[in-house]
Amino acid sequence: MSAAFSFTLLATDAGARLGAIATPHGVIRTPAFMPVGTAATVKAVYTDQLEAAGADVLLSNTYHLMLRPGAERVAKLGGLHTFMRWQKPILTDSGGFQVMSLAKLRRITDGGVNFQSHIDGASYELTPERAVEIQCLLGADIMMQLDECVALPAPREEIERAVERSLAWAERSKRAFAEREDLGLARPGQALFGIVQGGVDGELRRRSAEALVAMEFPGYAVGGLAVGESPQAMLDALALTAERLPVHKPRYLMGVGTPVDLIEAVARGADMFDCVLPTRSGRHGQAFTWSGKVNLRNARHADDPAPLDPASSCPAALDYSRAYLHHLVKAEEYLGAMLLSWANTAFYQQLMAAMRTAIAAGRFAAWAAETKARLGGGV
Amino acid sequence: MSAAFSFTLLATDAGARLGAIATPHGVIRTPAFMPVGTAATVKAVYTDQLEAAGADVLLSNTYHLMLRPGAERVAKLGGLHTFMRWQKPILTDSGGFQVMSLAKLRRITDGGVNFQSHIDGASYELTPERAVEIQCLLGADIMMQLDECVALPAPREEIERAVERSLAWAERSKRAFAEREDLGLARPGQALFGIVQGGVDGELRRRSAEALVAMEFPGYAVGGLAVGESPQAMLDALALTAERLPVHKPRYLMGVGTPVDLIEAVARGADMFDCVLPTRSGRHGQAFTWSGKVNLRNARHADDPAPLDPASSCPAALDYSRAYLHHLVKAEEYLGAMLLSWANTAFYQQLMAAMRTAIAAGRFAAWAAETKARLGGGV
Repeated sequence: MSAAFSFTLLATDAGARLGAIATPHGVIRTPAFMPVGTAATVKAVYTDQLEAAGADVLLSNTYHLMLRPGAERVAKLGGLHTFMRWQKPILTDSGGFQVMSLAKLRRITDGGVNFQSHIDGASYELTPERAVEIQCLLGADIMMQLDECVALPAPREEIERAVERSLAWAERSKRAFAEREDLGLARPGQALFGIVQGGVDGELRRRSAEALVAMEFPGYAVGGLAVGESPQAMLDALALTAERLPVHKPRYLMGVGTPVDLIEAVARGADMFDCVLPTRSGRHGQAFTWSGKVNLRNARHADDPAPLDPASSCPAALDYSRAYLHHLVKAEEYLGAMLLSWANTAFYQQLMAAMRTAIAAGRFAAWAAETKARLGGGV
Repeated sequence: MSAAFSFTLLATDAGARLGAIATPHGVIRTPAFMPVGTAATVKAVYTDQLEAAGADVLLSNTYHLMLRPGAERVAKLGGLHTFMRWQKPILTDSGGFQVMSLAKLRRITDGGVNFQSHIDGASYELTPERAVEIQCLLGADIMMQLDECVALPAPREEIERAVERSLAWAERSKRAFAEREDLGLARPGQALFGIVQGGVDGELRRRSAEALVAMEFPGYAVGGLAVGESPQAMLDALALTAERLPVHKPRYLMGVGTPVDLIEAVARGADMFDCVLPTRSGRHGQAFTWSGKVNLRNARHADDPAPLDPASSCPAALDYSRAYLHHLVKAEEYLGAMLLSWANTAFYQQLMAAMRTAIAAGRFAAWAAETKARLGGGV
């Protein structure tokens, strides 16, 4: 285990960046897609399968884990890596986004958020300081500051207030983390990222980015996107945010997206991504393949002996017929969700690997055009 | 692939039998437990995991497969082994038992059973001839005759009528299979078993067994048990049935059971078993271990860093803490069902392997006493 956190920019090509993030649990090759392990498990997928698929890093959710099984409990059990049997890097979010979308009776003030658990109604408080504490207890390699994320469209005043509050919380998060480090309560090499907010408003994005850059975080997330705005507005907001971020720090676009979203976002300088799409789609009979999206519920697959995706290297996409996958999906069998979640997670890793190869070869733009055509141009 | 079906009795010890069944897809070591792959999948378990756990044979259900995806479709796709990616032996039941328990508007006559699918209400007919045809289409290594199974307790006349009908169906099944063999519509080495009925009535059991033995099936199932009678009545009925069966044919006790049931049934001369208990229990948070049953929903596991079962050789029982399993079960995560179904299936295979070792060593009775004590003596 190395104790240092660092980001090395290895190459840039047509806006896209090739890099490597060193963390206490190993290196994350960027652009990187992080499978989402909400409740300390990537739904229906074994960690061995994630590792074999080439995933360097998982994301797990502070909100879910603080409610169940509880951060202090996970810490006593040796931390999240041991708990969920994953020895490579883990990024945790701050819990803020899910508090906004899942919790009941939430009340947000400048101090933090009070809310009731969606599981049992119990009352909780989440402050910038507590979010850092929880993520340290979980043992995350990369932590996120608590922020306020506004669903779009929203009045400018509301977005502006969220930007200012998020900046104040960024400072408190940084201070809380520094204090924990001084007290020996953080593990060497843990890193805390700031989160740029500002909706799709260029001026607010710039204000947010510049203030966070002045605070000198080791990495920056672009939050508050993919929350209701159009894909083009999302990409424009990403591009103008990325311009304001330092070149030698990693950039994480939160909650994005489809395969084409990822290609477009990489072209605009994003390095890291997470999204539930590959696993959620898998549980609903949808597959991502190198020939585009495939709906396994469709009756046209009922007699098809062909594998899901001969262009994939994932056993789930190679070793079973579409007819069998169709049958499993129709019969609502566990194995259907298991195989499609596995195949989709592997496809996303293959997509990122292909992007890294294209950037290294200096042909990202051509690769992106070819691949978007191959994938059917969109969702 | 060998073309011959045969049973070799290797040793007997205190009523228990050690044997080997040769089939077109390999050898089944007996006593054998067959994981149940109802709809062409053992729920939540990969076939690779079943093979690594030591399973020599799976069971799949004619009733479910004839409704969805359909036997003709499976045949066109290369048969059930290819369809579900399992190249070792498969035993299929005849569909009769599930028609009785699951189908709607069923009407049973001497000709066969008419019923409506529980999935979409479509009408089907299942006759002894059609049951053989379906199982040949599926490509089963071991097939079962269509029989009539009566839930207990039941009037003697009803059980007697079911015995006579099942015997008539046994003859028709045998004839239908011979005709298919003559026409080249069966694969070499496929075997059809007769099923002894008779409830817990000694005289009816004897009548059924003797008539079936006279028909010379390559193996015999003991059906109509574990359907409402007491465990002791079940074991007594098994024992008196086994006495009437030829020593050099395999004996399959259908639908049984708990670990202790299996030990007791092996002591009474049964060679093969199937039951949904390991996988169904796994989906409900129940684990079978070498220290007895464990309910992972129980809060006492919430902080337990110990693995599920250090005496198991299954990764699911060794590589994850009870605290993590408890969390997964409480959070209703797929991985909870996956790990517990895997661990339970592996435990059952380990139990059968231990029985085979004990019989080979001539210490089955002592092993059985020790093991029943170790497992807590019962369910």
